[in-house]
Amino acid sequence: IIVFDEECFQGRRHEFTSECCNVMEFGFETVRSLRVESGAWVGYEHASYQGQQFVLERGEYPQCDAFGGSNAYHIERLTSFRPIACANHRECRMTIFERENFLGRKGELSDDYPSLQAMGWCNNEVGSLRIQSGAFVCYQYPGYRGYQYIMECDRHCGEYKHFREFGSHCQTPQIQSIRRIQQ
Amino acid sequence: IIVFDEECFQGRRHEFTSECCNVMEFGFETVRSLRVESGAWVGYEHASYQGQQFVLERGEYPQCDAFGGSNAYHIERLTSFRPIACANHRECRMTIFERENFLGRKGELSDDYPSLQAMGWCNNEVGSLRIQSGAFVCYQYPGYRGYQYIMECDRHCGEYKHFREFGSHCQTPQIQSIRRIQQ
Repeated sequence: IIVFDEECFQGRRHEFTSECCNVMEFGFETVRSLRVESGAWVGYEHASYQGQQFVLERGEYPQCDAFGGSNAYHIERLTSFRPIACANHRECRMTIFERENFLGRKGELSDDYPSLQAMGWCNNEVGSLRIQSGAFVCYQYPGYRGYQYIMECDRHCGEYKHFREFGSHCQTPQIQSIRRIQQ
Repeated sequence: IIVFDEECFQGRRHEFTSECCNVMEFGFETVRSLRVESGAWVGYEHASYQGQQFVLERGEYPQCDAFGGSNAYHIERLTSFRPIACANHRECRMTIFERENFLGRKGELSDDYPSLQAMGWCNNEVGSLRIQSGAFVCYQYPGYRGYQYIMECDRHCGEYKHFREFGSHCQTPQIQSIRRIQQ
């Protein structure tokens, strides 16, 4: 990943091949554009992988708005980021549960779902979930919009038993679309 | 589709089962929340299917930011909308071309691609494209972000030979992610 402190790949530039806990330590005030050259990464609003999170896949992001987490919660900051190691799994599998602690009705997912309701999930919420393999990104709204939560089999032992474990900024169990992350 | 003139499914309400050319004719100043009960729809910023466009799939959109076209170009208006008739095709197929008028290198797509570059497209642009069947949504940035362009086999004979045909608001051929639309 190559990050720049000005828009359109201008200004100070730094290339990373592994995680960065705080881009300010490299003389950046913030990141205003970036290019992902390989792999899949997750970016965070604050240092130490805190705040809003958002998936970064191969391609060009010429301004903050291009990578900023969501439509609804517009952010202007990217302060830490890390590669998603398990995103090269060929097979992505997860189970979603209606209620917290892996209770209630469940659904097995191994594909991309722009609308969970269209695939038969009768709810705009997911109470808890378990990742058997690979990595997924869950979104608050249909069509891959709103808050993002990156969920990996390598983190939390793949278990997210309450919406507070979905991410440090997560305030509701509302999840309406889910897709796989692949490199 | 059920639309409301206040956030969180409050205020004036109207249910549509077919296209709406101008929601103001139904006494709405604008739409501030909506629920898609079945099918896939496309919403437009302005009346008569003009301006920014955005796909609306089954689920709940409690505020403008939840359905507004993109991260980058935040809009506050939904004035017209219509169902995407061909989105029930089982098989979605399209061909993308490097240059306008179906020239240059080409790629065949029949799946979802959060990063065209990751699948081998060596460019952040698509010059022209042809939809053989079904409907797709193309996005300016990777990970289904930025401007959206809804492309259907039933419209324009499925042929989009210059980026100006991608949508009335389209100003560049930049396309970095593409996915199918299904009901």
